[in-house]
Amino acid sequence: MTIIRRTILHDGFESLAVVDAAAGVRPGILLFPNVLGTKEADFAYAERVAALGYAVLVADVFGQGNRTTRADPDAGRFMNALNADRAMMRDRVAAAHAVLKDMAEVDAARTAAIGFCFGGKCVLDLARSGADIAGGVSFHGVYDAPPFPNATIGAKLLICHGWDDPIAPPEATVALAKELTQAGCDWQIHAYGHTGHAFTDESVHMPEKGLAYSPDADRRSFRAMADFLGDLFA
Amino acid sequence: MTIIRRTILHDGFESLAVVDAAAGVRPGILLFPNVLGTKEADFAYAERVAALGYAVLVADVFGQGNRTTRADPDAGRFMNALNADRAMMRDRVAAAHAVLKDMAEVDAARTAAIGFCFGGKCVLDLARSGADIAGGVSFHGVYDAPPFPNATIGAKLLICHGWDDPIAPPEATVALAKELTQAGCDWQIHAYGHTGHAFTDESVHMPEKGLAYSPDADRRSFRAMADFLGDLFA
Repeated sequence: MTIIRRTILHDGFESLAVVDAAAGVRPGILLFPNVLGTKEADFAYAERVAALGYAVLVADVFGQGNRTTRADPDAGRFMNALNADRAMMRDRVAAAHAVLKDMAEVDAARTAAIGFCFGGKCVLDLARSGADIAGGVSFHGVYDAPPFPNATIGAKLLICHGWDDPIAPPEATVALAKELTQAGCDWQIHAYGHTGHAFTDESVHMPEKGLAYSPDADRRSFRAMADFLGDLFA
Repeated sequence: MTIIRRTILHDGFESLAVVDAAAGVRPGILLFPNVLGTKEADFAYAERVAALGYAVLVADVFGQGNRTTRADPDAGRFMNALNADRAMMRDRVAAAHAVLKDMAEVDAARTAAIGFCFGGKCVLDLARSGADIAGGVSFHGVYDAPPFPNATIGAKLLICHGWDDPIAPPEATVALAKELTQAGCDWQIHAYGHTGHAFTDESVHMPEKGLAYSPDADRRSFRAMADFLGDLFA
């Protein structure tokens, strides 16, 4: 297996395709990064997903060059612009989905989305828009609904959640369960005890703030995602 | 593989060992049935677990002959006696665990428990007692804690839960998460949308009462259990 990376420029955005060069047309997975935008950690995760037999697009929804780091005093500025305009956010995630479906390696009828932190919110907003994804997986996502009604959600959803996540306390999780139930979609929430935000992110170690990498939750959520995607595209 | 069944009588109880006759000493799984007590559906589920490479004991905690059916006007009478005396319940589940550990096929240092409905509560009470099980899995369990303090819970726990279960509404699930967090144990809750009580039970079809078999939740929870046990005993 030879996993290759290929930059895709689209309308001022810079996404990255991560695919096994030898495989044929296959299901496509859209990967939405966290608050910082696309970075090496996303590309590395995408390689693990590509190794499962999928063509992955690490989606840029901030615009080319619009990236931050944790050291940045205003690390959330590109995310905040989208949070403040959920219609624009909806259109950005839809545009990324269209780019995925256009990839030569991708069977456009068989796609799903995954995402981390703010990227989990991107997954949810893509599903809420009624996009034709078979499924979506949110890892330590953000659950507040847009200020406009959902479309019918046809996607199956898996929400991988740290129970001690300060960004999504139990009431936010219960509210998400209610929203998804009302939307009629097939959903699962996997909650992990003693686990905070950012549990997939090896660079994060701030347990006192409720943000920390968790090897257990990372391993369990990866396995759950792999099982879920396998079921979707069996 | 030749799965055999062997009745084990112990102190007035009648449990059933379900094992691959050809395998050697292996991890042991205690299976606690629902409100009705041991029955063919439990033996059949135990065969699926035995096929994963475990020695299973379908545990009788009601006493020999103490079994009911759904047609019984007082189907819960044996369960209710234990619910009314959680210390007796604790001792009954501990006795069943001792029988499992005594089985010739079982590595007594590597055991876990699984259970359905009231049997999920048995799993939790065994863990709450500080028993030396490596892990426990509750399927559509019942979450109210005993009226006495927990021991230190060393077992890892997986709670497979139907979000629409009328026996365990969201506040009961949130309370369980809080209890298990305070007990310090490694826990996961997998919640399934549009899923009620008894989702593993093919004989139950009362969606209007929030009790119904769900092929999706049954398949997903079996897979989650298999992954969980595999991790425990890797």
